[in-house]
Amino acid sequence: MPDIMPEFSQNANNMHKSVIRELLKLTQQPNIISFAGGLPAPETFPTKDLADAANRVFQKNAETALQYGATEGDNQLKAELIKYETSRGLHVETKNLLITSASQQALDMIPKIFLNPGDCALAERPTYLGAIQAIQSYQGRIIGIPSSNDNDGFNMIELEKRYERAKAHGDRIKYIYIIPDFQNPSGICWSLEKRKAILEFSYREKLFIVEDSPYREIRFIGEEIPSLYELDQKGKNMGNIIDLKTFSKILAPGTRVGWILGREDVIQKLVTAKQAVDLCTSPFTQMWIAEYLATGKLEALIENTRNIYREKRNFMLTMLDKYMPKRYDLTWTKPEGGLFLWITLPHYIDTEKMFYKAVEKQVAYVIGSAFYFDNPEHNSMRINFSYSSFGQIEEGVKRLASVIGDEIKAHEAGPRGQTTPEGI
Amino acid sequence: MPDIMPEFSQNANNMHKSVIRELLKLTQQPNIISFAGGLPAPETFPTKDLADAANRVFQKNAETALQYGATEGDNQLKAELIKYETSRGLHVETKNLLITSASQQALDMIPKIFLNPGDCALAERPTYLGAIQAIQSYQGRIIGIPSSNDNDGFNMIELEKRYERAKAHGDRIKYIYIIPDFQNPSGICWSLEKRKAILEFSYREKLFIVEDSPYREIRFIGEEIPSLYELDQKGKNMGNIIDLKTFSKILAPGTRVGWILGREDVIQKLVTAKQAVDLCTSPFTQMWIAEYLATGKLEALIENTRNIYREKRNFMLTMLDKYMPKRYDLTWTKPEGGLFLWITLPHYIDTEKMFYKAVEKQVAYVIGSAFYFDNPEHNSMRINFSYSSFGQIEEGVKRLASVIGDEIKAHEAGPRGQTTPEGI
Repeated sequence: MPDIMPEFSQNANNMHKSVIRELLKLTQQPNIISFAGGLPAPETFPTKDLADAANRVFQKNAETALQYGATEGDNQLKAELIKYETSRGLHVETKNLLITSASQQALDMIPKIFLNPGDCALAERPTYLGAIQAIQSYQGRIIGIPSSNDNDGFNMIELEKRYERAKAHGDRIKYIYIIPDFQNPSGICWSLEKRKAILEFSYREKLFIVEDSPYREIRFIGEEIPSLYELDQKGKNMGNIIDLKTFSKILAPGTRVGWILGREDVIQKLVTAKQAVDLCTSPFTQMWIAEYLATGKLEALIENTRNIYREKRNFMLTMLDKYMPKRYDLTWTKPEGGLFLWITLPHYIDTEKMFYKAVEKQVAYVIGSAFYFDNPEHNSMRINFSYSSFGQIEEGVKRLASVIGDEIKAHEAGPRGQTTPEGI
Repeated sequence: MPDIMPEFSQNANNMHKSVIRELLKLTQQPNIISFAGGLPAPETFPTKDLADAANRVFQKNAETALQYGATEGDNQLKAELIKYETSRGLHVETKNLLITSASQQALDMIPKIFLNPGDCALAERPTYLGAIQAIQSYQGRIIGIPSSNDNDGFNMIELEKRYERAKAHGDRIKYIYIIPDFQNPSGICWSLEKRKAILEFSYREKLFIVEDSPYREIRFIGEEIPSLYELDQKGKNMGNIIDLKTFSKILAPGTRVGWILGREDVIQKLVTAKQAVDLCTSPFTQMWIAEYLATGKLEALIENTRNIYREKRNFMLTMLDKYMPKRYDLTWTKPEGGLFLWITLPHYIDTEKMFYKAVEKQVAYVIGSAFYFDNPEHNSMRINFSYSSFGQIEEGVKRLASVIGDEIKAHEAGPRGQTTPEGI
């Protein structure tokens, strides 16, 4: 009898294993220093306070925490989140709020409710891999907009050009997906002017904006810039911003709890979607976080995280200055927040090919091309500074600089120092 | 400036708010006795043991539990699950196992990886609402197969007939979805013969079977019948069964943790899907359950749950006998396991219309029509016996019997006792 082979759907055929995950399997050896993962610093986890909060849930509300809960989310957590958002200057009501199983669930449900196969989202180029995977899993497409030379958000001329070209081509563009605060992978933070510009663009073109804000609170340098959600709410109040928030970077990713802010009809549609996706997020983890928030300790925790990340970021920049070859075509971002910086290497270096040499020298990064959905650039990499210790940062940068130095030397020693023209 | 209205996808337009949830909003008043929810008995939750297990996670493994985890699931939990499945007679390796954010996530990902818009699944008629919602959210369709008169699984003649008709009609049928043990909503348990018959059918037609097994362990009467997964594994071993398991009914639904057993290529595709859906299930809740399983107390817990549910089920049947009008056209199932029984009323009673009268008399149920995807029957209801106390069961059945009695009387006192022909 012949084998019974699974016959997968078009959605499934559009799902791509994360390149990052496959490469990361190579980095599981004990002596590798990995700048690859997007992991928060474990020393920021408030373990004792979270253990106490969990115990209070068991003492006070075990029956509710262990039972099924409402799809919209736990009332106590929603009340705490409304307090939190209010303290940050927003007006949020229960009807504008949906608790999610962390932000990746929001990134999955949004293309599900907005995109038919072939429909498009506008997004930064490069952008967060998990958002790309989710959009592709519904056969959606991404129209990539490069950053301005000032690294302060979209290149608005390119936006207009690519948008018009797509429309002329018959593409149906359904929303704009951006990470305005300390973008993954680039670390870029959008300026106030660019935020206002993209908001005006969205009003003019009647597009929704999905504002992905996992790193927003993790600003360690400079002044906070209002979110798009806030700018809209305090301005024309068109209600076309869907803001994605999560506890993953401000508390602990192992909780898998996030929340969405948005207008009521969109939240209602997402509630219906979530019913079929997982019924509800764990009532236990929601009530656990609510108990933690009720202690009022989150602000101090975030401040502590900011301090730790500022130190690590500064130290990594110092180490890059100290060890990296000094060249006009070897640059890195200097982010004011978040977990990552982005290194651009001489154009002839392919960071995917170099990855295996780096692993041999026991250092790992994420290849930049993983964050592109088409025509990837191959000479960039994402480097995480939140997870490693100071000692690991110095040693890891030293190893990385040596690998890159070897690549440059090999290229320059090539057939009579031959160089390929820029752009190839 | 005109409002910016969301323009939803076809998937979203196919999502339907759960009728159950909307009706249940009426049942939130304090004095209502609700047989509607599918809630486990809270007295079965091992609160003390779970609190201890959570504390052990904080003491031993807080850093891992609070960090991101692997999409496939936590290694410790997978090892415990392999022990558990082995003790139940299965051979399971890590590659056959995926941890999910409870079974609803599996029910969502399976149509996502198998169904293109218009593709079909064969399913019991009626069947679990959450499975219907998930399939519809990918524009999948369901071909319903009625139960045999013996209530022991599909009516196999109808299966062949409807399958041939669908194929002749050009329908692409991708898998069979069934709940062989104590089905939701009907409480039906498939006989060994029917299990073998559907397995042979699936081999002949080269179809996958999705075996949804949330209630399998909750058998309180009679002998366990092998699962389809076991029958295949110990028989022809074609590997075309995908078995969905969950801790929701054997431990506590608030954990939101389940697992899938299946062949490696299907598990791998589901892992890729899960990457984009939620990255990973909470490492904390997974390790928490693993710590609980390591105590070896689960078997005794399940035995205790069986005993409680047997008592409640018997008591509810006694109360139905005592209070319900005695008529050939008013019947109910007598399940050997699970959480539900299914009541069929005289054909002229519409349980949705009657629902509001029941709520007035402070008793609630789920309307049977919610479990049909087309041409629903309107004279049935699902009754839960696990959640209510004994006192509530007696009082609730009394109220329900009175509402039904009123409907029958009103009908018989109608214009000269006129009856509508059967089937209308």
